Amino acid sequence: MTKPICLTGIKPTGMPHLGNYLGAIKPAIEMANSNQYDCFYFIADYHSLTTIHQPKLMSQYVYEVAATWLSMGLDPEKVTIYRQSDLPQIMEMNWILSCFTAKGHMNRAHAYKALSQANIDAGRDSDQGVNMGIYGYPVLMAADILFLRTNLVPVGADQLQHIEIAREIVSSFNAVYGEVLVAPEAMVQSETLIPGLDGRKMSKSYQNTIPLFLPEKKLQKLINKIKTDSLPPEAPKDPADSLIFDLYKFFSTKQQQDELAAWFKRGIGWGEAKAELFKVINAGLEQPRARYEELMANPKEIDRILEMGAEKVRPKAQEFLTKVKKATGIIC
Amino acid sequence: MTKPICLTGIKPTGMPHLGNYLGAIKPAIEMANSNQYDCFYFIADYHSLTTIHQPKLMSQYVYEVAATWLSMGLDPEKVTIYRQSDLPQIMEMNWILSCFTAKGHMNRAHAYKALSQANIDAGRDSDQGVNMGIYGYPVLMAADILFLRTNLVPVGADQLQHIEIAREIVSSFNAVYGEVLVAPEAMVQSETLIPGLDGRKMSKSYQNTIPLFLPEKKLQKLINKIKTDSLPPEAPKDPADSLIFDLYKFFSTKQQQDELAAWFKRGIGWGEAKAELFKVINAGLEQPRARYEELMANPKEIDRILEMGAEKVRPKAQEFLTKVKKATGIIC
Repeated sequence: MTKPICLTGIKPTGMPHLGNYLGAIKPAIEMANSNQYDCFYFIADYHSLTTIHQPKLMSQYVYEVAATWLSMGLDPEKVTIYRQSDLPQIMEMNWILSCFTAKGHMNRAHAYKALSQANIDAGRDSDQGVNMGIYGYPVLMAADILFLRTNLVPVGADQLQHIEIAREIVSSFNAVYGEVLVAPEAMVQSETLIPGLDGRKMSKSYQNTIPLFLPEKKLQKLINKIKTDSLPPEAPKDPADSLIFDLYKFFSTKQQQDELAAWFKRGIGWGEAKAELFKVINAGLEQPRARYEELMANPKEIDRILEMGAEKVRPKAQEFLTKVKKATGIIC
Repeated sequence: MTKPICLTGIKPTGMPHLGNYLGAIKPAIEMANSNQYDCFYFIADYHSLTTIHQPKLMSQYVYEVAATWLSMGLDPEKVTIYRQSDLPQIMEMNWILSCFTAKGHMNRAHAYKALSQANIDAGRDSDQGVNMGIYGYPVLMAADILFLRTNLVPVGADQLQHIEIAREIVSSFNAVYGEVLVAPEAMVQSETLIPGLDGRKMSKSYQNTIPLFLPEKKLQKLINKIKTDSLPPEAPKDPADSLIFDLYKFFSTKQQQDELAAWFKRGIGWGEAKAELFKVINAGLEQPRARYEELMANPKEIDRILEMGAEKVRPKAQEFLTKVKKATGIIC
């Protein structure tokens, strides 16, 4: 029996942090390892081109994000991992689909609406600084999904709209040419809220992140920055009300958590609590960090793995693109 | 010395008529035969996909337009003629350029403005019936031009804007990455006004055209429909004020024209004048029509010629695309 095709795009925008790992990378890797799906994960470098116009940063981000997933346990034998730009079929699909995408859908896309509203609020032309890549990216996203005949796309609730647009495009296209494209289903992921150093959601925009692969000393330093109250060491503390304990839970066993909770109630110094947190996080990241550094020192190995993935996808992609082109009469 | 690269796109939208031939095809073939340029002419099938959603019509139009150019004297040894959809590099370039195209340019593009104004005038949403292919086609046009490092693009005055947009995109891209893209120059063609059956400009939208490759009898019938006044045969007639004479000039020698002009002044019956016109047009189209019918009966031969062209372009296109991708950091 063939498994449903499950697709995830990974936008390279800098080294992922703990929040990205726990909220997105870890569940995606677990999903791949579950063997329930035929998983395709791709580095969406052409999406990054809408905003990243520094060539060195672009390639650095691609390597960082690929090395992160690989070192956190993504098995390229189980998941087909590839670079978007290695598959020109996606770009051809992007144009074909654009001919069946109502412009109105783009006007209503969240990202564009937010940008144009910000322009209007600042008294600027609503399209200032908006390029056609930013405006049209939901079409490219639909191409990413549809060129592979994807069945399932895991998304956060904020990305549901992209799947809806992709489904609209499928309807328009299939209404003309018959059942050629496959309508994808969204698999809405419940969001795991990972707190950052200041207690707010961990996010680059708050500058409160813990990047995944810092050298040990820097990691320790960052953890020491976690906000705490001014209770003295000997005062009993409530683990349920502690940012340190919240983060600790993600990297520890039930037994470790019970022990630390008891220490909290007995009275723990914040410095001690942070040291315990550092210990478990560092233990969890030690091996991946070594693998990450190894990969980053040898980008050719990353290229090799990504090219291996592209090679697996290419024949399927070409075959299906030909079918789509035949449907339109572009190929007779 | 290398010759300037000259590019022309041919949109397949049905069998060309005499006006298309005299106004566009003939001068383009003469330009190619002048040996002054390195000419690339392409069938813009992906542009047609913005509006033509009938697969049979799509392939028929592509073959008709290719067969027309080939039978009217385009020499595929002198001109590289290819199908746009045979070069996926154009589609990849299309996305890259979209990331450097201000959305504002698209809002000002003539074709989109006309469509949205017509919607507004009719009290509809300004984007009704506008798909993203229609909206974004000036970016694809820029990709058609830029992927080949084109120097010159022959255009009518109404298409100047497309070249301006392409040049804007070159500026934006090169401002970031250095002198990678080549800014094309427009070669503005003076318009030859070819009158249709009713005296207005020959145009499909007026339904006054003479399609190029009608069977003789149908051609004769159409020519007999040309509007004339009710002067009796024996009355002297002014050739300068005759639609028949206007069309005659395009297909005759100076001597033939002098003879017919003399007959006009002596008095000619409109039926006789139309018979003379039919004679010269038919003589001019007889050989091309036979070649056209031969090609249309053997579309594999058209495919072969177009594929030969694509094969010539592909390595150059791939090499340049790689250069562009390296500039952006998409390839390291």
